[in-house]
Amino acid sequence: MGENTGTICKGKNKESTMVTIAASKPNPENIFSTLIAYQNAFMLKAAIELELFTAIAEGANDVAALGNRVRASERGVRILADALVVKDFLHKENGKYSLTPESALFLDKRSPAYMGGMAGFLTDEENIRNFSQFADCVRKGGTISNIGDNSKPVDHRWVNFARSMASMAAPVAAVLSQVVNAGAAGDIRVLDIAAGHGMYGITVAKNNPRAQVTAVDWAPVLEVAKENAQKAGVAERYSVRPGSAFDTDLGDGYDYVLITNFLHHFDVPTNEKLLRRFHAALKPRGRTITVEFVPNEDRVSPPMAAAFSLVMLAHTDAGDAYTFAEYEKMHKNVGFKNCSLQQIPDLPQQLVIGEK
Amino acid sequence: MGENTGTICKGKNKESTMVTIAASKPNPENIFSTLIAYQNAFMLKAAIELELFTAIAEGANDVAALGNRVRASERGVRILADALVVKDFLHKENGKYSLTPESALFLDKRSPAYMGGMAGFLTDEENIRNFSQFADCVRKGGTISNIGDNSKPVDHRWVNFARSMASMAAPVAAVLSQVVNAGAAGDIRVLDIAAGHGMYGITVAKNNPRAQVTAVDWAPVLEVAKENAQKAGVAERYSVRPGSAFDTDLGDGYDYVLITNFLHHFDVPTNEKLLRRFHAALKPRGRTITVEFVPNEDRVSPPMAAAFSLVMLAHTDAGDAYTFAEYEKMHKNVGFKNCSLQQIPDLPQQLVIGEK
Repeated sequence: MGENTGTICKGKNKESTMVTIAASKPNPENIFSTLIAYQNAFMLKAAIELELFTAIAEGANDVAALGNRVRASERGVRILADALVVKDFLHKENGKYSLTPESALFLDKRSPAYMGGMAGFLTDEENIRNFSQFADCVRKGGTISNIGDNSKPVDHRWVNFARSMASMAAPVAAVLSQVVNAGAAGDIRVLDIAAGHGMYGITVAKNNPRAQVTAVDWAPVLEVAKENAQKAGVAERYSVRPGSAFDTDLGDGYDYVLITNFLHHFDVPTNEKLLRRFHAALKPRGRTITVEFVPNEDRVSPPMAAAFSLVMLAHTDAGDAYTFAEYEKMHKNVGFKNCSLQQIPDLPQQLVIGEK
Repeated sequence: MGENTGTICKGKNKESTMVTIAASKPNPENIFSTLIAYQNAFMLKAAIELELFTAIAEGANDVAALGNRVRASERGVRILADALVVKDFLHKENGKYSLTPESALFLDKRSPAYMGGMAGFLTDEENIRNFSQFADCVRKGGTISNIGDNSKPVDHRWVNFARSMASMAAPVAAVLSQVVNAGAAGDIRVLDIAAGHGMYGITVAKNNPRAQVTAVDWAPVLEVAKENAQKAGVAERYSVRPGSAFDTDLGDGYDYVLITNFLHHFDVPTNEKLLRRFHAALKPRGRTITVEFVPNEDRVSPPMAAAFSLVMLAHTDAGDAYTFAEYEKMHKNVGFKNCSLQQIPDLPQQLVIGEK
């Protein structure tokens, strides 16, 4: 090693030296990191499954205590916890682990804002399988799974979604509820389409004691929504219409129709068919509120909304992450007077609001 | 919506308004992004499989031309290419895609530095399967697969590794070759343990016409190394000793023993057994050069080296990413006079050098 190749410094041991030499750029690190990114997903999923964050919150803060508490090997717990530190989900000092503010709020099972449940849907086998054959999805232009037509019921998938994703909906539901309840004085009737866990409509009802909510979804999914309405203390103002948003009788005269994470599953003509039905269900000057990943017109920003189209390619026959211009056109085409975009800073989703 | 909840700006359409309101912090985005990080791995894998980067390098730079060139649907190509822009693997301007410097160098199949092949190993089914049951690995303290004892041959896996990972080795092999050839005058004999694709030893031989390299690995894997030695024009100075590094006759009197990405597969006693054999194969003052992911003593930095222990937990019975102190102790325990760490900036791996 010539002197020009780097610096030499003594190690702890007198005989050990440390030498640094320069490597060339550009760097393949982003390529390598991305190809192994699945490891981070499964790492976090495992930590959630093992309730490692809850164990740390409860005071088990070293490898021995954690292994004991989550009933896992010390080697396994040490490697998992260290990797969670690398990825900013834990802190480590003098061999003791502690939670980051995010992990304390969202990953400790005792926290009211707990979101660990979403691992059950986001990393479920079906989702992994569809993505693992992504080149075939690109060739075909749609999912390789046989359940990509989301106008048909797929109970196991949507019950799992309803059970797993309720907590993730809370921040957006809070904003949506503000919008609905600020725009309405007193009694309102709200139709919640493809309600899933029901958290959007339920949050509106919780924040407005004079709101009546009607939820539409497949019957087994509505069981989850009804449980959540019960827990939230709004069951008396919560009714359901089981069946398909495409042909169930929706009723009419609603002040608001909530369309949350639904339109992204379908192509434009299908969405216009749906929006026409929702328009008909509204009273004059009533509003649809669509919760969606809405990329900018360049379709490559903001990052999470733009990348959501990948998910639709992997799991649906013809869904997409539509731009606001596309949503606006769909709304206008079926007779909405007005359509506006309401952005929610720091969250990956936006609201598209249609006015009859 | 009260004025205090945000800003309102006019959309393109006169009747459309855009409203911004504040959401609360801390933000669950890192949790959400990590749980869906497998999507990025499969996205990049698909783009490599479809040779999308090569197609763009050759001039197919919009959705229609790309769909044609890679024989895929326009919807699929548009969604894939846009997501690659989001993740910094492509640029997009006015609907035209172009390569980033990294993609041009590492992902265009015609580039001599092409690294796309590593997707074939890093995202292979076995690797995904082991990781997808990571909670079980943590409980057990080792892989759930039945091929986690890497002292036994697993030909399909290591032939795939040798075929896929050669390009990834190039930057570190260049540094290693500098070290070997700077430290040696003239004729040297090099033993390359678990040679795989053989690129470390082959690079040494390429850069020093008086170097003789002997490669050890399972026979089917050595076929790949021999092909690579032939291509590199060093076949006459390249010989092989098929079999296990644990019991094959290694020969003796070597100037260097290369131990590249090998020791991480085993526990400490097994590594000491191996290092004792390598020590015996060296001539006096000969050196081992170990290429490894070497985390700092805190075990949580630098990120890639520290996180590599996850990979060993998922795929091996007892492997690890060892610290330099641990490697130093293993070397000293079996009789090495000296042990030093040579860091390679901008690359995730380091060299551990043992002197007899």
